Amino acid sequence: MDKIAICPGSFDPVTLGHIDIIERASKMFNKVIVAVMVNPNKQPSFSINERIDLLKEATTHISNLEIVSFDGLLASYAKERSAVTVVKGLRAVSDFEYEFQMALTNKKLNPDLETIFLTTSAKYMYLSSSMVKQVASFGGDISDFVPACLYDKIYSRLKGVN
Amino acid sequence: MDKIAICPGSFDPVTLGHIDIIERASKMFNKVIVAVMVNPNKQPSFSINERIDLLKEATTHISNLEIVSFDGLLASYAKERSAVTVVKGLRAVSDFEYEFQMALTNKKLNPDLETIFLTTSAKYMYLSSSMVKQVASFGGDISDFVPACLYDKIYSRLKGVN
Amino acid sequence: MDKIAICPGSFDPVTLGHIDIIERASKMFNKVIVAVMVNPNKQPSFSINERIDLLKEATTHISNLEIVSFDGLLASYAKERSAVTVVKGLRAVSDFEYEFQMALTNKKLNPDLETIFLTTSAKYMYLSSSMVKQVASFGGDISDFVPACLYDKIYSRLKGVN
Amino acid sequence: MDKIAICPGSFDPVTLGHIDIIERASKMFNKVIVAVMVNPNKQPSFSINERIDLLKEATTHISNLEIVSFDGLLASYAKERSAVTVVKGLRAVSDFEYEFQMALTNKKLNPDLETIFLTTSAKYMYLSSSMVKQVASFGGDISDFVPACLYDKIYSRLKGVN
Amino acid sequence: MDKIAICPGSFDPVTLGHIDIIERASKMFNKVIVAVMVNPNKQPSFSINERIDLLKEATTHISNLEIVSFDGLLASYAKERSAVTVVKGLRAVSDFEYEFQMALTNKKLNPDLETIFLTTSAKYMYLSSSMVKQVASFGGDISDFVPACLYDKIYSRLKGVN
Amino acid sequence: MDKIAICPGSFDPVTLGHIDIIERASKMFNKVIVAVMVNPNKQPSFSINERIDLLKEATTHISNLEIVSFDGLLASYAKERSAVTVVKGLRAVSDFEYEFQMALTNKKLNPDLETIFLTTSAKYMYLSSSMVKQVASFGGDISDFVPACLYDKIYSRLKGVN
Repeated sequence: MDKIAICPGSFDPVTLGHIDIIERASKMFNKVIVAVMVNPNKQPSFSINERIDLLKEATTHISNLEIVSFDGLLASYAKERSAVTVVKGLRAVSDFEYEFQMALTNKKLNPDLETIFLTTSAKYMYLSSSMVKQVASFGGDISDFVPACLYDKIYSRLKGVN
Repeated sequence: MDKIAICPGSFDPVTLGHIDIIERASKMFNKVIVAVMVNPNKQPSFSINERIDLLKEATTHISNLEIVSFDGLLASYAKERSAVTVVKGLRAVSDFEYEFQMALTNKKLNPDLETIFLTTSAKYMYLSSSMVKQVASFGGDISDFVPACLYDKIYSRLKGVN
Repeated sequence: MDKIAICPGSFDPVTLGHIDIIERASKMFNKVIVAVMVNPNKQPSFSINERIDLLKEATTHISNLEIVSFDGLLASYAKERSAVTVVKGLRAVSDFEYEFQMALTNKKLNPDLETIFLTTSAKYMYLSSSMVKQVASFGGDISDFVPACLYDKIYSRLKGVN
Repeated sequence: MDKIAICPGSFDPVTLGHIDIIERASKMFNKVIVAVMVNPNKQPSFSINERIDLLKEATTHISNLEIVSFDGLLASYAKERSAVTVVKGLRAVSDFEYEFQMALTNKKLNPDLETIFLTTSAKYMYLSSSMVKQVASFGGDISDFVPACLYDKIYSRLKGVN
Repeated sequence: MDKIAICPGSFDPVTLGHIDIIERASKMFNKVIVAVMVNPNKQPSFSINERIDLLKEATTHISNLEIVSFDGLLASYAKERSAVTVVKGLRAVSDFEYEFQMALTNKKLNPDLETIFLTTSAKYMYLSSSMVKQVASFGGDISDFVPACLYDKIYSRLKGVN
Repeated sequence: MDKIAICPGSFDPVTLGHIDIIERASKMFNKVIVAVMVNPNKQPSFSINERIDLLKEATTHISNLEIVSFDGLLASYAKERSAVTVVKGLRAVSDFEYEFQMALTNKKLNPDLETIFLTTSAKYMYLSSSMVKQVASFGGDISDFVPACLYDKIYSRLKGVN
């Protein structure tokens, strides 16, 4: 499959669970576009540019990635970028239902767009950006949750913030 | 059963999934009261009066409906209106758990009030008002999601809004 | 709604949870057909005729019931009996998914057939025929689980059987 | 087990479901610390001190409780207080998934900290603080939901507030 | 991705839902091996060879398929065939949990083997081989459930069988 | 809590997930009774005595265990043995619903009996006895699934059996 995949997400901030999914997607596709979504309804902890920089720093070992920001309709953006597959990680039943709804909606809007789900590795199953924020805000150790090279940047931003 | 049913909801805006449930309820009961709920905690995209007008326009083919706004306790309002049944559509497991909790609470508050659940048609299973808002806000095509007669009104309000 | 509803089930044996659903359905419809299904793949604890007799004995207080055995396609039987509604109780998420699948299948086979779900009362939520069998087989007290008038008949059959 | 358990929660306000879990935990452990969590992201209906006072008033019959406010990392606070167990009530699948995630995170941060889950009694399964707020705000009867001794204090605060 | 995928299943018998997943997989991979699993614990309705023949007849329009029987460990068979991806369709939460468990087990046994999940199309969400058997056994119409070219073969085998 | 807990299960065969739960329970209670249940409806892979022997061999490092077979009503057996707590591990939503039902039933039969749930460690979340059987029957490596000291005994019994 000489095709391009998109990994969409907020990545606020990126976790080891995200890196795991991105690495696995990068082995399955010729090119993977990691699309950092702008969510106007939520106040992020890291700006779009910071989130992109964190992702770039944590993925220097992966050659076939492009990391971009993205503000619009995923189904349209995929078409524009000639991507035919969306890749998402699934952790829990609640993830599953929301992502299912999104996948069917995107298929309706762009019938050529396929969504595939990867299962999160067992050791990252409990991991989410919001859990990282919660733990770091109280000064907890997040070294099992985020890439080692980003620890200081992520921790110093989140510590003491609620 | 010469009885009155209530279909409560936010309808912000009404979708084809809502219309499907309302049509089916209207065949099962002598009268169906579609109750547009005021939710003071959320900023709606359409005002209560707009939502009522959209519902009226999309249900001119159903004769035994009354479309009202509703601000209070469903269990009390049902008693006041001599309605003995609440009708809700179910799409997913997460719907199910919340609606289950609501049904048991309403039964506690008004033991004569029965809640019945209809299964959403397979083709509308992924559909929700928030999905409509999200797609339209980015300029996506919502013609499979909302009644044709309302397309322009709904689309023009939601497009570009985040 | 001058209509007939069907409550299908195995009722092997009938529990207080079943009686609760049947009572509530009987208030919502002019006539309720309780259809005891023949399941050729399972060895029942009570024969079809015994299950019908237990149901009859436990529902003498409900006048608009008909209790029948049923071996075939629910969607066809409903048409034959002019029933337009199937009534089912829902307890848990696992119930929900299976019943959802059945409801969509029945709708496909008989587009006029509507399935409605009632929420099991909180106090019967843990109750199932198989739980009754398991408890009684070990000599446990099942008086909170089955109609009082059937206690002896059900207990003597199930005790000591595995 | 001569050990201390922690029951964390928002308790905004305390319900009969909470009291049920606290009572059962108090029988299982030598000492139970009820930790009222400060959630900086939500505007509570009752202040931390009010929530503590309500809890104290409703638990005068339980001798081995300590009721405290808590603002930080549960995993660290447990260590500080020599508590080795977190006790949580489970009602529904959605509870289960979030609590599972929290339990695995806390175990990661404090490997000696065990989380145990109790099943909510069937009759309180539909009950939550937010349901209490919703019902009371519209003037509904909350006497089946909150301790009798707190009815007036809770009702007068919540009535008419949205 | 110049790679080979495996679609494992019982296909007893093949449904339109299976064909949908196979078609979509065949667009994503250079080659798709449809592996009909021998399940020694279940008495199938169709023999392995019959299931393979039905699959072949229903997929003559797809060129990059190989349809085989399979009796062993999927993780080993994938290695033997140089396949690096397992493709599965997901319909419901209960599917999700079992498939999740299988995917983590297969990853443990063969770390190079990735499992990807596709969402079943909304219109096939209720569809399963066992539903087809149940409907056909009672003489119901299965034309919306199985490929048209297989209708007679499947229906004549299943009708009247319980 | 100077009390006795019961860990009931089939343990056919014991897995590392079971050992994890037993170890954690043994730290929480003065004494833990591991009760191997006789299930007359299932043909086990290991006899009751073999399952007890495997459990004993894998738990020589835990001093406060008693390993027994158990054929009857858990609620009664707990009373007889003066145990006031049942300890169960939870892996998934489907576990949760069944165990919830069991816990409410046991509470009904023995109001003094409390059931507590521990979350399975992330690394064992996919693990079950039936998965072990399935993998070993096809000659797969089960060294990540069962205690090292039992590998040969378990593998030689299960290999090639279907």
